Amino acid sequence: MKEFLKHHPWQIIEEGFDPHYHTISESVFSIGNGQMGQRANFEETYTGETLRGSYVAGVYYPDKTRVGWWKNGYPEYFAKVLNAPNWIGLDLRVGKHVLDLAVCKIEDFRRVLDMQAGTLSRSFVATLADGKKLRVSAQRFCSMARGEVGAIRYAVTPLNFSDQATVSLFVDADVVNKDSNYDEKFWEEVYKEASAGCAIVTAQTKKTFFHVTTAMRYAITAGGQPVRIDRTDIVEREKFAGNEVTFNIEQDQEVVIYKYAAVLSSENHAKDKLVAASKEVLDGAVRTGYDALLEEHKAVWKHTWEVCDITIEGDVAAQQGIRFNIFQLMQTYTGKDERLNIGPKGFTGEKYGGVTYWDTEAYCLPFFLSTAEPTVARNLLIYRYKHLPKAIENARKLGFTRGAAFYPFVTMNGEECHNEWEITFEEIHRTSAMAYAMRDYIVYTGDKAYLAEYGLEVLIGIARFWAQRVNWSSEKNKFVILGVTGPNEYENNVNNNWYTNYLGAWTLRFTLEAIDYVKGAFASRFGEIAGRTQFQEAEETTRWREIAEKMYYPEDSRRGIFLQQDGFLDKEIRRVSDLRAEDRPLNQKWSWDRILRSCFIKQADVLQGIFLFEDDFDMETIRRNYDFYEPMTVHESSLSPCVHVILASKLGYKSMAYDLYLRTARLDLDDYNNDTEDGCHITSMAGTWMSVVKGFGGMRVKQDTLHFTPFIPDQWTSYSFRVEFRGRVLKVKVSRDGVETRLESGAALEIMVNGAAVSLK
Amino acid sequence: MKEFLKHHPWQIIEEGFDPHYHTISESVFSIGNGQMGQRANFEETYTGETLRGSYVAGVYYPDKTRVGWWKNGYPEYFAKVLNAPNWIGLDLRVGKHVLDLAVCKIEDFRRVLDMQAGTLSRSFVATLADGKKLRVSAQRFCSMARGEVGAIRYAVTPLNFSDQATVSLFVDADVVNKDSNYDEKFWEEVYKEASAGCAIVTAQTKKTFFHVTTAMRYAITAGGQPVRIDRTDIVEREKFAGNEVTFNIEQDQEVVIYKYAAVLSSENHAKDKLVAASKEVLDGAVRTGYDALLEEHKAVWKHTWEVCDITIEGDVAAQQGIRFNIFQLMQTYTGKDERLNIGPKGFTGEKYGGVTYWDTEAYCLPFFLSTAEPTVARNLLIYRYKHLPKAIENARKLGFTRGAAFYPFVTMNGEECHNEWEITFEEIHRTSAMAYAMRDYIVYTGDKAYLAEYGLEVLIGIARFWAQRVNWSSEKNKFVILGVTGPNEYENNVNNNWYTNYLGAWTLRFTLEAIDYVKGAFASRFGEIAGRTQFQEAEETTRWREIAEKMYYPEDSRRGIFLQQDGFLDKEIRRVSDLRAEDRPLNQKWSWDRILRSCFIKQADVLQGIFLFEDDFDMETIRRNYDFYEPMTVHESSLSPCVHVILASKLGYKSMAYDLYLRTARLDLDDYNNDTEDGCHITSMAGTWMSVVKGFGGMRVKQDTLHFTPFIPDQWTSYSFRVEFRGRVLKVKVSRDGVETRLESGAALEIMVNGAAVSLK
Repeated sequence: MKEFLKHHPWQIIEEGFDPHYHTISESVFSIGNGQMGQRANFEETYTGETLRGSYVAGVYYPDKTRVGWWKNGYPEYFAKVLNAPNWIGLDLRVGKHVLDLAVCKIEDFRRVLDMQAGTLSRSFVATLADGKKLRVSAQRFCSMARGEVGAIRYAVTPLNFSDQATVSLFVDADVVNKDSNYDEKFWEEVYKEASAGCAIVTAQTKKTFFHVTTAMRYAITAGGQPVRIDRTDIVEREKFAGNEVTFNIEQDQEVVIYKYAAVLSSENHAKDKLVAASKEVLDGAVRTGYDALLEEHKAVWKHTWEVCDITIEGDVAAQQGIRFNIFQLMQTYTGKDERLNIGPKGFTGEKYGGVTYWDTEAYCLPFFLSTAEPTVARNLLIYRYKHLPKAIENARKLGFTRGAAFYPFVTMNGEECHNEWEITFEEIHRTSAMAYAMRDYIVYTGDKAYLAEYGLEVLIGIARFWAQRVNWSSEKNKFVILGVTGPNEYENNVNNNWYTNYLGAWTLRFTLEAIDYVKGAFASRFGEIAGRTQFQEAEETTRWREIAEKMYYPEDSRRGIFLQQDGFLDKEIRRVSDLRAEDRPLNQKWSWDRILRSCFIKQADVLQGIFLFEDDFDMETIRRNYDFYEPMTVHESSLSPCVHVILASKLGYKSMAYDLYLRTARLDLDDYNNDTEDGCHITSMAGTWMSVVKGFGGMRVKQDTLHFTPFIPDQWTSYSFRVEFRGRVLKVKVSRDGVETRLESGAALEIMVNGAAVSLK
Repeated sequence: MKEFLKHHPWQIIEEGFDPHYHTISESVFSIGNGQMGQRANFEETYTGETLRGSYVAGVYYPDKTRVGWWKNGYPEYFAKVLNAPNWIGLDLRVGKHVLDLAVCKIEDFRRVLDMQAGTLSRSFVATLADGKKLRVSAQRFCSMARGEVGAIRYAVTPLNFSDQATVSLFVDADVVNKDSNYDEKFWEEVYKEASAGCAIVTAQTKKTFFHVTTAMRYAITAGGQPVRIDRTDIVEREKFAGNEVTFNIEQDQEVVIYKYAAVLSSENHAKDKLVAASKEVLDGAVRTGYDALLEEHKAVWKHTWEVCDITIEGDVAAQQGIRFNIFQLMQTYTGKDERLNIGPKGFTGEKYGGVTYWDTEAYCLPFFLSTAEPTVARNLLIYRYKHLPKAIENARKLGFTRGAAFYPFVTMNGEECHNEWEITFEEIHRTSAMAYAMRDYIVYTGDKAYLAEYGLEVLIGIARFWAQRVNWSSEKNKFVILGVTGPNEYENNVNNNWYTNYLGAWTLRFTLEAIDYVKGAFASRFGEIAGRTQFQEAEETTRWREIAEKMYYPEDSRRGIFLQQDGFLDKEIRRVSDLRAEDRPLNQKWSWDRILRSCFIKQADVLQGIFLFEDDFDMETIRRNYDFYEPMTVHESSLSPCVHVILASKLGYKSMAYDLYLRTARLDLDDYNNDTEDGCHITSMAGTWMSVVKGFGGMRVKQDTLHFTPFIPDQWTSYSFRVEFRGRVLKVKVSRDGVETRLESGAALEIMVNGAAVSLK
C-alpha cells in the first residue's frame, strides 16, 4: 500500500517526482475516451523506467501461445491489447541538452488528473545539466467529443536563459509490447508521410492486419502569435515520421506547443481511406483549436457526471476513490460501439490480454444499466450475441455437440485466448454469466423482447452446454457437475461447486421460461430460432427440466450452509485472521498446492451465488453462509469485496461493509495489491460502484419497481448517487437525517424506500 | 503402429530406406554404453529430416522455464539432457558430389542393430547425381569396455568408377537442442585444436559450465594398408575442428575409414586435464585398433547377456522385443557411477528433460536387482540419499518445515525441474517411491544394514513430509490427504487418492520399523542420525503412529473395492471397449477437462498399490479391484501394462496378461504410440522385463526365499530367464512340459516353485 497521492474530491494529485512511483502514476493518470487511451507517459524523452502505452480500441494481436506443457484443446494464440503507435511524442532539446526527467534536476513537479474535466496536466521546473532552468506546463486529453482526436498543450518558459530550442514532434509506430511471449514486435509500417508541420504513419498489425493511421499537426506560439521558426527538418525512419523544429526561446517568455493527433483504425474506416480520413479529422481539430476542443470535451464529461456521479461528504479519500472508479470506467467504455467491450485494464495497461471476461456481465453491466441509456447495456449483450457462433465452435473443440455454446474465459473476437486448463476448460460458470446478464438487463429495463430478438438463441446454446456437461451419478441419484473451477479460483478441478451447479440449473430453468415467453409473445420468431438452432423442443426441454429438477447441491445440513464443493469440510477450517502477516497475500507467498488444499477463498463463491439469487434464500440462510465463508475469504481478487459489501449491508454488518468497501474504492490509488504499475483494475471498479449503490444504498429492482434500503457508514456525513431507470434519472441522497429521493428527469415514478412507497414527480 | 522392422531373435533389421521412418529408426537403433550414447544418425551428410543426438551422461543444461502462467513454487529452470558435440561426423564427397542419402538414389539399404554384439551397422549402394555408384558399409559402437570411446568403421567401394574422394572427419560442438524453450544454443567453445590426423574441441555448457572434450583420430586404409593421401586440409570454425582428406578411390576396391573418438567430461576429469586425458584415451584406442576394441566390447556384452537374457521360443517377435528392452536398459545404465540415473529416453532422445523420475525406483530397480550385482541397485538408492538435502530444500520451498523431504518429480541434480502444478506439487506419491525402493532392495538382497548406513535418514525426511501433508478431517474423523495427483495422471488435484493415502501411511509404519531396527542393531549410528536430523523421537513417532492408524481410505463396501479417490463413483462408469476408435488415444483426442471428468485411467493406480503391497490383500479383493478398474484403463502411459500383466498373471487371466504384455514389449519397435521418433521409452522397458519375470514367471521374494509360480502363454513354446539372487545366478526355464530351474553359479539354494521347495546345487 502506498499513499503518495493527495486527497481531493475531483482531482488526483501527485506532488514531487519520485521515479519509483512513476509507472504506478502512468497507470493511475491514464486518459481515454472509449476509442483510444493513453497511459500517463511523459510527452518528452524519458530514459527512466516507464511502461509506454497507447491503445486503440478493438485492435489486437494474437500472440503465439506460450505454455510449459500443451494440453489438448488449448487455443493457438493469446489475443493481446496492443501498445499502439505513439502520438504524444514531443521531445525537447535546449542547446545541447535534451529535456529528460530521469536526468534533470526537477522542482515543483505536479501531476494532476482532473476527473471533472477529463484532462491530464503536469508542470515542473527542470534544470538542465548546463544549469538552464525551464518551466514546463503540459496538458492533454483524448477528446470525448471526437473519439479519434488527442490534443496536447505543452508550454515551456525559460527561467534563467535565452537559447535555441529544438522540438521534435512525431508519430512513432516502432513500439514494443511489454507482454510479448517471444519478444516479437507486432507492428509493420505500411505508409508514411512527413512534411513541414505534419506527419503520418500507417502501421499494420502482423497476422490480424489491422491498420492504424496516426497523424499529427502542430502549432508553436508565443503570446498568442506563431513563433519564428529557424528551421524545420523532416525526419523519417522505419515506422517513424516527424519534424524537428528549431526556434529561439526567450527568458521568461512562455512558448506554447500545441500538438494535435488523429488516431484512426481500420475498424472504422476502409484501409485505403485511412490517410485521407486522418487528414480530415486532423484538419477539423486544428481548425477548432485546442481551447475549443477542450471545451467540447469538458462538456461531454459534464453531461456524463450529471448521471453517474456519486458524492460522499465527510470523507475526501472515499469521495476521490469512488469518482476515480467511475471516471476510469467511463473513459474505458462509452457503449457507442457494440463491437467493443471492457478490458480488465481498460486503456491503462496491457496485462491479461483480451478485453472481455465474465467481469463484463457480472460486474460492469449493472453499472452501465444504472448510469447510461439502456442501449449501452444492450450493446454489451449484443456483443456476446455476435460471438455465439464462436462460442459454439469453442464448445465443439472441447467435444460438445449439437450447438452447445461455451463462451470463452478471455476473448477479443469470440475465440478463447486463455490457456490454463483449470480455467479455460473448467471455469465453466462464466458461460452462464451471459444468461444472468440477460436477466439483469430485463429486470432493470423491462425489455423482455430482447429475448426474442437476441437472447433466446444464446440461451439455447448455453442450456445445451449444461445439459451435456452434467452427468448422472448413480451413487447420488442426482445430476452432478464434475471437474470445475468456481469463481473461487483457489480451488481447481473440484466436483459439484455449489455456485456452478446452482447457476447451471438456474440457466436451464431460465431458458425454459424464455422459450415459453418467446413462443407465446413472438411465435413466428420462435419458429425461426428453433429452425436455425435445429431445436428439438420436446426432447431437449424434457431433458433440461429433468436436470434442473434433479441437480445435486452440496450442503451441510448440520451447519445449515451450502458447501462450496464436495469435500469442502475435509479441509482444516481456519480463519484469515489467524494467518500470519508474512503469509499474505497467499498467492505471492504460498505454493499453489498449499493454496488449493487450504480453506481460504480467493473471491466470493457460494456468496456470489447468494448475491445473484438472493431472493431464493431467507435471511438466516444468507447469514449462516456469510458467517461461515466470510472469515475464510482473502479477497485476493479485486472482484470479491463488493459482493461481500452488498451482503454485509443486507445483513446489517455495517462496519464490515465499510471496511470491505475501502479495499475496493482506493485499490489502485493506494496500490493496495502492489500491481497498479501494470494498469488499473477497471472491471472491479464497477463493483465499487455497486458497493455504494446496491450495498449502502440497498438498491434493487423487484417487479419493475426500484427499491432502496440505505444505510450510511459512520465515517460519512452523507452520500448521494444518481441512477437512470426506465427513462428517468433519480437522485438518492442519504444523510444522518434520512433519505432524500428526487426525480431529476423523466415521468413520475413510484419507488420503495425502506419498504415504504414514495412517489416521485 | 508401424511394422517396418524385420523380426529376428538377436537383431533389429531395417531393409530399404524410407525417409519417413528415419527419425524412428534413429531412436530404435541408438547405441550407448552408460557413459555416452548416440542416436542412429548417419555419419555422413544428411539433409533429410533427422534428430541429431549425442549424449554424455551427467551433462545437462538448466533451460529457462517456460510456462503460460507462473505459479508460486515453480522451479526457475528445467534441466535438459543435452545434445552433445557430434563425434560421428564423416562427410564424403566424390568429385563434385556429396554423399547424402536424402539426395542420392539408394539401393540395398540395410540397417542392423546387433544386440548380441552391441553394434550398429548400415550398408547401402548409393548412386550420385553423376551416375557414380558406391557401396558403403558402416559400423559403429560405443565401447562398453572403455566408456569414453566410440569407434566407426566406414567402408566405401566405388562400383562403376574411380575418382578423387574427399572425406571430412571432424568433431562439432555447434549443435542445437530440439527441445530448447527459447531456441537457445547451449554450448560455448573453450578449446579447439586441429592438426593432420587429429581434431579436438572442448565445449562448455552455459550456466552449468560442464566441459566436454570431444577428440578424434582416424586411419584410412585399403587392402589393410594406409591409402595414399593427396592432401589434408585442416578445417577450423567456431566450435568445429576437423580434417578434409583427399585421396583416390579405385573401382571395386574397398577403402576403409576408421574413426576413433574420445568423449570426456568434466564429471570425470579436472577441466584443465581434459585435453591431455582425451589424447591418452584416444592414443589407447588407436593403438588397440578397431577390431580389438570391438572384441573387448563384444566380450562385455557377452557377459551382460549371460545374466540378463530372456529367451522365448516359438515367438520371434516377442523374443526380439524382450531382448530389445533389455539391450536398451543395459546400454543406458551400467550402475558403475552412483551419480547417474536412468533417463526416460536414455541416450535415444532428449524429450522430457531430466534423467530421474520415480520410474527408477518403481520400475527399474527390480530389473537391476535381478540382473546385476547388488551394488548397482544400491547405487540407485545412494543417488537419492545424496539428493536428500535438495529434497529437504524442495519441501521447504513449498512451505514444509523441520527437515521434511519432498523428492522432485523430475530431476538432474536433486532439484525439481518440472512445472505443472498438478504434477510438480501434487503428484506426491513419488517421494515414497524412495521408501518402497529401500524395502524392495532389502527384501531382495537381505542388506538391512542399508537402513543404518543411508536409509533411515531419507525415511525420516519423507515421514516428516507425510506428517505435514495430511490434515485431520473432523468431518471424517480421520486423517485425509487433499489435493493430490495419483499415478493415474488423468485425475488431477483429487482428495484421498487411495494409492497415495496407502503409500503415505505405509511409509510412516516402515519408518517406525526402521527406527526400531536401527536403534536396536546400530544404536550409536541411530544417535548420530537422530542428532543430525534433530529428530524428536517421542513426539514425532507418536504423531506418525497416530496418522498411520487413523488414515482414511476411500472404498466402496458394496462393491468391495478401494476407490481411486473421493467421489470416483460420481463419474459415469464406462468401459474402454465402449470408446469409439476415433477417441483413442484420449490424450490426443480429448480436451483435458473431458479426460479428467471421465472414469478412464491412464495408468494403474489402485492396482499399482495392490501390486506393491499384494500380501496385504486376499485374492478376492485383488480380483474385485482388478475386475473393476481394468476395463477403465487405457494404458496411455508406457508404465501401465506391466502392472496389469503381473496382476492378471496372478489372477490366472492368462490371455489378458499376454495381450497386455505385447503392448509393452514392442512398444518402440512397432512405434505403438506414434512417438518413438522422440526416443525410446527406456524406463518402461524394465516393466516389460517384470512382466515376464514377475508376471509370467511369478517371481517373488518372501522371507529371504525366491518363489516362482510360472505359467506359459499359449503362443510360446518355452521361455527362460536368469536372475541373480544373493550371490547366485539361477536360470528358470518354463515350457509346456513344466518348469526347470538351475543354479548357474553360487552356493546351493532352496527355492519354491509353485509352492513346493526345490533345492538347487
